[in-house]
Parts: sequence; structure tokens; C-alpha cells
Amino acid sequence: MTLQSASVDEQLTYLKKGLADLIREEDLRERLIQAGKSGRPLRVKAGFDPTAPDLHLGHTVLLRKMKHFQDLGHRVIFLIGDNTALIGDPSGRNTTRPPMTREEIDQNAETYKTQVFKILDPEKTEVRFNSEWLEPLRFADIIRLCSKYTVARIMERDDFTNRFKDGIPISMHELLYPLAQGYDSVKLECDVEMGGTDQRFNLLVGRELQRDFGQPAQIVATVPLLEGTDGVEKMSKSKGNYIGITESPKVIFRKVMGVSDTLMWRYWELLTDKSMAEIAAMKTEDPMPVKMRLARQIVTDFHSAATADQAQADFDREVREGREPDDMETVIFGGDSLPKILLGTNLAESRTDAERKIKAGAVEINGVKYTDLKFVNPPGGSVFHVGKKWKRILP
Amino acid sequence: MTLQSASVDEQLTYLKKGLADLIREEDLRERLIQAGKSGRPLRVKAGFDPTAPDLHLGHTVLLRKMKHFQDLGHRVIFLIGDNTALIGDPSGRNTTRPPMTREEIDQNAETYKTQVFKILDPEKTEVRFNSEWLEPLRFADIIRLCSKYTVARIMERDDFTNRFKDGIPISMHELLYPLAQGYDSVKLECDVEMGGTDQRFNLLVGRELQRDFGQPAQIVATVPLLEGTDGVEKMSKSKGNYIGITESPKVIFRKVMGVSDTLMWRYWELLTDKSMAEIAAMKTEDPMPVKMRLARQIVTDFHSAATADQAQADFDREVREGREPDDMETVIFGGDSLPKILLGTNLAESRTDAERKIKAGAVEINGVKYTDLKFVNPPGGSVFHVGKKWKRILP
Repeated sequence: MTLQSASVDEQLTYLKKGLADLIREEDLRERLIQAGKSGRPLRVKAGFDPTAPDLHLGHTVLLRKMKHFQDLGHRVIFLIGDNTALIGDPSGRNTTRPPMTREEIDQNAETYKTQVFKILDPEKTEVRFNSEWLEPLRFADIIRLCSKYTVARIMERDDFTNRFKDGIPISMHELLYPLAQGYDSVKLECDVEMGGTDQRFNLLVGRELQRDFGQPAQIVATVPLLEGTDGVEKMSKSKGNYIGITESPKVIFRKVMGVSDTLMWRYWELLTDKSMAEIAAMKTEDPMPVKMRLARQIVTDFHSAATADQAQADFDREVREGREPDDMETVIFGGDSLPKILLGTNLAESRTDAERKIKAGAVEINGVKYTDLKFVNPPGGSVFHVGKKWKRILP
Repeated sequence: MTLQSASVDEQLTYLKKGLADLIREEDLRERLIQAGKSGRPLRVKAGFDPTAPDLHLGHTVLLRKMKHFQDLGHRVIFLIGDNTALIGDPSGRNTTRPPMTREEIDQNAETYKTQVFKILDPEKTEVRFNSEWLEPLRFADIIRLCSKYTVARIMERDDFTNRFKDGIPISMHELLYPLAQGYDSVKLECDVEMGGTDQRFNLLVGRELQRDFGQPAQIVATVPLLEGTDGVEKMSKSKGNYIGITESPKVIFRKVMGVSDTLMWRYWELLTDKSMAEIAAMKTEDPMPVKMRLARQIVTDFHSAATADQAQADFDREVREGREPDDMETVIFGGDSLPKILLGTNLAESRTDAERKIKAGAVEINGVKYTDLKFVNPPGGSVFHVGKKWKRILP
């Protein structure tokens, strides 16, 4: 099928794949029918912080779902929440959140674009900043906006409920953010708003505010949080279980090849455009080549088909051609700093030897060179290669 | 003593008379000492709604306490909360609170001045509007302001606590008002803020915000609610138990003469500049002439000494010279509309007769003519005079 000529049922199936919440499916169906009749594409928003972007595959789950709307001809709004970033931490207590300058925000927006346009189609994307409508609001406007929502409703948000119950302070300004986010949807006249499952409540506020402003309530679609390469925890840079989209083809390929078979199916679902039917069909095949196709696909997305070929060739040579021994020793050693791990697993003879090897570039983890003495907690099951020694280390 | 040369103890005694709350007395003492040394008068704020003012004695309790600060040389800020009045009821549900225009607000401010300057000294009064600093606030400013206060603190306000507990909706914008009021104190650099006891919480918010803005926390002083002429309920126009400051000398005089002896002492305390010692001394006298002095004093405050003489003469002639019979019948009849009361107490022969008498101006209650067929619930113990008949009616 060509996607834009697909039936409404086919479109719905394509859009629903991998979603955590869809509120409500019948509304989305109705809206797709209308869009088909009128030729007016749907307006699909997702909001992003204007902090320095360094996206990993976890972030791309949402971007890919936005792309799916674009595949069907709809318009995506990449909304940068710059207004509150200009304030920083307004309580002044959190010094790690200083106010950002206009220049920093604009620079980060440019970096965002180079990264997200690897997935999104620039022709069908609006990049907007919410300062456009939040900055001119006056006290009277904010009173009016707040009058449309009750304290009880806002306090229903899980984290607010729990903090209030536990006596953990909620600053008054935190209550304003969900309203501001909902107001973004009003100003942008969104048909759909998307976000992670942790955004569910905020997205629902938009539905109510839009009704209050005489607009049809937006459809809310959330995507699940992606598990990291360890298959357990949410993918996150600080946990070391991430695959960054700006990492080298070789590293991405190797990291994907290192995930478990179970996680591989999850990645097929959330990180590719393959349908659930196509994924089900692959489950009858030998998993190794399927995982290799996944790794090729992901490298192709963020680099190119040519670099994917090269990455696969490198992987074949190093692993298949026996560079990485099949009978590698597996050692159990808890998370720690790199020198201590080397020492504790007999990959180095002394602390000094460990540090020297790291600095000299002789330490590879999953095929990637690590030269940072402070690196901690490599993903569980990582393959260490130091000099002629190979070990798989489980935490 | 001349008040401005009074000792700090004497000043404190003068200011404390009749207050419901004073937070905190030692701070006020300290601030009075500083003011005495530096010659810088204290800045004493009270806020008022810009709705059409038609003040009764209940409102003057606060104004008189503001005057007491002026008597000691301090500066009073009569703050008109115009910013939110320009919004009306922002939820749009309460049609009795439409937004006010700038012209209406300015007109009401002028009416206020003619009424309040009967008590306050215009030379020592600043009339301000809070739109001056609230109107220019941006979303970022409001976020910053809100960040200085927690939800838990705001929800401690009695009415919020109860409504939240009982599931009665609190609109989000209601939480912003106490913060805006506190911000008024910051911008005006108030030393003292005053209000009714129902304002206690809002005034305390100002203390915390000022500290957060690096100012010394204002002293909070509240005055009690004044009982109406019935001695039971809070004085209020809708309850008919009020004495309006724009009423005629004759009416004011009569209404004051109609209050109980107990209530008279309360009125001496809250409606005059007499000290508690002077009031205690009067309690050894025959109450009738003391009450007459109170009535004269109040008429003098809002009209003149000459009209007070005339009002007393009228009262003497009508009551003392036997126009109002001493052996008047007392009838018990529940609150109802005027025609029904006349009918039920045999002051009229029929409903038609009652209405005719009212319209013809033949009905006086406490010496005041009533021609409104819809008037309900005259104060308990009122003297009705219809034609030649006199009756005292208890509800």
C-alpha cells in the first residue's frame, strides 16, 4: 500500500503500533476520516526542553511516532518550551538549572534540527517556540487561564498527589506548567499531542483547556519508555545503557548486536517502521541475522546504508572471523570505575597498569575504545578487550 | 498627651485598642521606636475592592484604625485592587461579577475618597491602584512569584482546606490572589498591613513574600467584624442591620439609640477614638445619656456637630416628649416582607391596605420611612409606626 491512500483502519493500525495510551481511538478515527475528506492534515504536537540535545534511541521512539503521522501526510509541530527555560529554576535553589540565554536556546534548537530531521521530514515539520504566546500573557490573562482549571484536578497528577500527601513541598509555580502546556495546544490548535507516558496527565489538561476555548479536544497519544541495552532500566545516558544517535556506525552496530533477543523484538517495534505483522513473521527466523538487519536499519537511519554496510563488515570480520573468542571467560564484577573493573577482573595487574592501559587506548568495551579514567558502570554483559585478553563482564 | 509625643507604650496602647490580631506586637514596638528615631513614618496599607462603595459603620472599624496610625504621624495607603476587577469573574460563571471598566473603577475611587476622607486625613493618605505593578507582570514574573510559595502553605487557608476536603471546587486562579496581595506589600514596602479577621491568612502571605524579596516582614493587624444593630449578626446591608455613613443624621442617630447597652460599649470601642480607660469610666454612668453621646459622636463624624445637635433635638422631641408611647406593645413576628409583617401584626387590615400604606409613606421603622414593598427582615426590636399605631416587633 502507499500510506496516504491507506484505508482508515490501515492508518489506525500503523499509528497505534507501540503506543502506550491512545485517548481516544474513536476520536482519532473520526479525525482521520475528516482529514481524508477535507484534505486538511492533522496538527500533531510534541514538546521538547530547549536544553542541549544529545539524543539517544530512547528519544527516537516519540520522534518515530511523529514521523508515522507525517508518513500519512500530517503536519508535525516540534515545540520548544523556551519560555520557562529563560527563567531557569525560579526558586533559585537549584543552581544546576541557571536561566538560559536566547542564544543558547537558538543554538540548541539548531542542534535539535540536525538530529531530529534524521527521522522527521522537514517539509512537514513546524519548529515553534512557546515564548511566542506565553511571553505576551499578562496577569489578567493568566488569571483567566487559571480560572479554567481547578486545584483538585491539577492535584490529581500522581506526583503531586504523592508529594502533597507526604508533605514534600510543591512550589506554586509547578502547578502553572501543566496549564501552560495545555495553553500551547490551544494556541497551536493541535489535533493530537504526543509525549512519554510520564506526560499523560499534562497532555490531558490540554484536552480540557481546548474544550474551554471552544476547540475540539486533542487526541492524546503516549509512547512507552524504551529499555536500555541492559534490557532492564530505562535508556539513559547516565546509566551507560544508551545508544546515541550521533555515535559512530561501528558503535551503534555493536551495541545493537549486544542486546538480548527479547529486547531486539521490542526495538523492532519501537525503533522501526515495521508493522507488528512483519515483526511476527520474523520471529520464525534465526534471530542472529534478524538482529543484524535491525542493527543495519538503525545505522542506516542515523548515518547511511553505505556506512551500515561498512559497520556490518567490521562486525563480521572482528566477531565472525574469530577476533572475539567464542569461548570468552565470563566474570561477575559489580559496577565500579573502569580502573577498578580492570584490576578486579585481572585485565590489569595494578591500578597503575590499569590507568596506563586506559590512557594508551588499549581498552575496548563492546568494540569501542574507552580512555576516560572516570567512566563507570558499563552495561551488563559488555565484552572487554584489553591487549590480548577478552572477557565478558556481568555486574 | 499629644499623640505624636506619646511614649512608645502609649502609642502601642492606642494602636492595639480593638484589634483582633497583632502579629507581632514586639515587631510593631520595634518599628515604632525606629520611626521615632528616624522620623520616617510607617507605611500602613489596607486593600479595598473597587466595587461601588456605600460604606456603613462596619467598614469604618478598619478605617478608624488606619486613622489611629495617622494620628501618630504615620502614612496610610488606601489600596484599590483594580487589576482583578478589570477581569470580573474570570470563570465567566458568575454573571453578577462582570468586568468593570476603567471609568467605573475611577468613579468608584472618587466616591470612596469622599466617604473615607470623613475619617482619614487626605494629607497622610496615598490612594494607589495595584494594576500599577500587576498589569506589567509577564508569565515569567508570575512563575518567579509563584516559586516563592508552596501549594501546602496556600492550602492551609481555612476556606481552601475545607473546600478541598469537602470536594468543593477551588479554581486555580483563586490561589493566585493571596500571592498578588502579598506582592502588593512588596511593591509598596509596607510596614503594616491591615484588614478584617477574614483577611488574616492573606496578610500573612505578604510577610513571607517580603522576606523573600529581602524586606523586613510587615506587621499584620486585623480588626474584628462589627455586629449590626441587632447585636447578633455581622453588620451588612443585605441583613438590614446596618448604619450607613451616608444616611441622614436623623436616621443614624435613631439607629444608634436603638442598639442594646451591651452593643453600645462595643461601638464605643470600635467606632470612636476613646481609650479603653475612658470607656471603662463611662460604664459607671447612666447608660441613656452615654448612648446619646455615642449617637452624637457618630453623627458628628459623618455630618457635623450642628446636625448632631439637630438630630438629638428631633430625637428628644419625638421620643422624650411622648410621641413614641412608653407602653408600646411588643409583638413577636418572624422575618418576612414588609406587607406581610404589617398584616401579621395587625398594623394593616389586608394585604391591599398594607401595600397602600407603604406606598403612601405611612410606614416608619425606627423613625425612618420605608416605601419599598419588597423590603424584608427589619432588625429585631424595631419600632414600627403606622398611622397612629406603634409596635415593637421582635422576630
